[in-house]
Amino acid sequence: MVINMDSLVKVVVDAMGGDNAPFELVKGAVEAVNESEKVKCFLVGDTDTINTELAKYQYDSSRIEIVHASENITNDEAPVMAVRRKKDSSIVVGMKLVKEGQADGFVSAGSTGAVLVGAQLIAGRIRGVERTPLAPLVPTLTGCSLIIDSGANVDARASHLVQFAKMGSIYMENVIGVKNPRVAIVNVGVEEEKGNALVKETYPLLKNCPDINFVGSIEARQIPYGDADVIVCEAFVGNVILKLYEGVAGALVSKIKEGLMSTPVSKVGALLSKKALKKTLKGFSIEEYGGAPMLGLNGLIMKTHGNSKSIEVKNSILQCIKFSESNITDKIKRNLQE
Amino acid sequence: MVINMDSLVKVVVDAMGGDNAPFELVKGAVEAVNESEKVKCFLVGDTDTINTELAKYQYDSSRIEIVHASENITNDEAPVMAVRRKKDSSIVVGMKLVKEGQADGFVSAGSTGAVLVGAQLIAGRIRGVERTPLAPLVPTLTGCSLIIDSGANVDARASHLVQFAKMGSIYMENVIGVKNPRVAIVNVGVEEEKGNALVKETYPLLKNCPDINFVGSIEARQIPYGDADVIVCEAFVGNVILKLYEGVAGALVSKIKEGLMSTPVSKVGALLSKKALKKTLKGFSIEEYGGAPMLGLNGLIMKTHGNSKSIEVKNSILQCIKFSESNITDKIKRNLQE
Repeated sequence: MVINMDSLVKVVVDAMGGDNAPFELVKGAVEAVNESEKVKCFLVGDTDTINTELAKYQYDSSRIEIVHASENITNDEAPVMAVRRKKDSSIVVGMKLVKEGQADGFVSAGSTGAVLVGAQLIAGRIRGVERTPLAPLVPTLTGCSLIIDSGANVDARASHLVQFAKMGSIYMENVIGVKNPRVAIVNVGVEEEKGNALVKETYPLLKNCPDINFVGSIEARQIPYGDADVIVCEAFVGNVILKLYEGVAGALVSKIKEGLMSTPVSKVGALLSKKALKKTLKGFSIEEYGGAPMLGLNGLIMKTHGNSKSIEVKNSILQCIKFSESNITDKIKRNLQE
Repeated sequence: MVINMDSLVKVVVDAMGGDNAPFELVKGAVEAVNESEKVKCFLVGDTDTINTELAKYQYDSSRIEIVHASENITNDEAPVMAVRRKKDSSIVVGMKLVKEGQADGFVSAGSTGAVLVGAQLIAGRIRGVERTPLAPLVPTLTGCSLIIDSGANVDARASHLVQFAKMGSIYMENVIGVKNPRVAIVNVGVEEEKGNALVKETYPLLKNCPDINFVGSIEARQIPYGDADVIVCEAFVGNVILKLYEGVAGALVSKIKEGLMSTPVSKVGALLSKKALKKTLKGFSIEEYGGAPMLGLNGLIMKTHGNSKSIEVKNSILQCIKFSESNITDKIKRNLQE
């Protein structure tokens, strides 16, 4: 079969970022290329290191290309300074490929701060976008929901939140495939008069926004039950939601394992139920959904967890394909510049 | 045995508030009186209704007294208006007993808004206390932690958060028995320069506060692991934490039940591990800790969940005993007025 290289979606993968770099990053890129014929990956980082990893796999070599970068930004570095100084780091080199239009998307498990800064300074915002939110997907009992914003830009204004609602709706509809996604704002109660100053100012703006399907306030308790698809909030709150989601789920699963191992009888029970339990819990796992998209940029920037495995990297790359195919950037441009 | 009625801790129970009123409220009061000889309960509400419930139990009748109240405040009512108008409601009548010094504490599963408003308007703040936080205990892998504030007063100032840290420390040390409780502020990262405007302003104040054991920032992910005892945050964030805790735990447990019931083999496994699992999960249950104390008032006001069972009511009453015995109100007065 002949693949038309021009029609491929081109995704940059930061091969050097994250706890499991380069192994899981390179593996994820190989898995994505093997799963979809629509994608070409650029692995950015040290050429020799990446070549050593690539040698382990079978794949269409015309669809994986190494782009050398001699430097690496770590989590300990101050993001703005690091992005400005390390011109030959994998994040800076990768973002430039996006900016120059050589790539449609960028996936990194590296420093969140550096990715967010690099996205703004190098890839660049879509004109009209006031702020670029980081919007992770969280699992719910009925599928998944987008938490927008949970990035590093705290203390948002009402106009930012309205843009988040619009961009989040476009993403959920086109990339995740949720028709007419329900938008809700995180609040301390469902009554319209409830909320802090920001929520009270934002609520009527969302209510009167014709481009979205606003369903009102959502209490945090209802998020895991899937009561809304696009969960709008200020970044500090979104960050708390995302991290507590992980924390409570992690702690509870370890508590359950402790319970299952606590008596000889329960150990037998654990053995018998292990397979079914694992399968069900997989449906409630954050890793299944790939990384968090950063929206409002010229291209899709995906930030995956620092400890991402190849499945998360692969799923992030696959999201870039849908993102590019649905022309999300054009849709956001039209919608926000109206 | 002769009980000295004067030395008893006197706790008002709102018999009419909550989804399970009066049944679980009356039952909880009876259980508390039967478990501790140190307490006397005033059941506030409709005399006939309460008498019908009381007739079901055996207890020391000298330590349960009915105080008639002909009205009831529901969740649908605007709190301030309801408290002002319904002078003969169980909440208003009960709060007055606290204000007049006839009772040391008040327990309600009724309207959170009305309890918070009643506490401020009727029971009254301790002089020097700027805001009275609602501070629920949440389960962790190592015990429990206090989330302070998660009430209805959003958009707090830095000085409020410092008082929350002090009052929360006194509560955890004296009522829950945690020596030298670790205080942390909820943040989006652990580095000192991280945070929104409020956190950045509060952090140095907490750091320089000699009365508390401040351990720095805590990310929401670490709360369920018990990394701090007193979790300081603004009420909007605290409300999100409390409700998401319940939501994720509830959704995950239902997902696990689904997994355990999904195949014939796993069903057998579930049967064998059920007992051990239940016992372990009980240690991670919010109900075990009773209600949320509202601090900084002339007396202890405990708000329990709307759907509280008798165990939560009983545990809230028992917390009132410890609260009173440790002279928390005096300790807060001394600490905040220094």
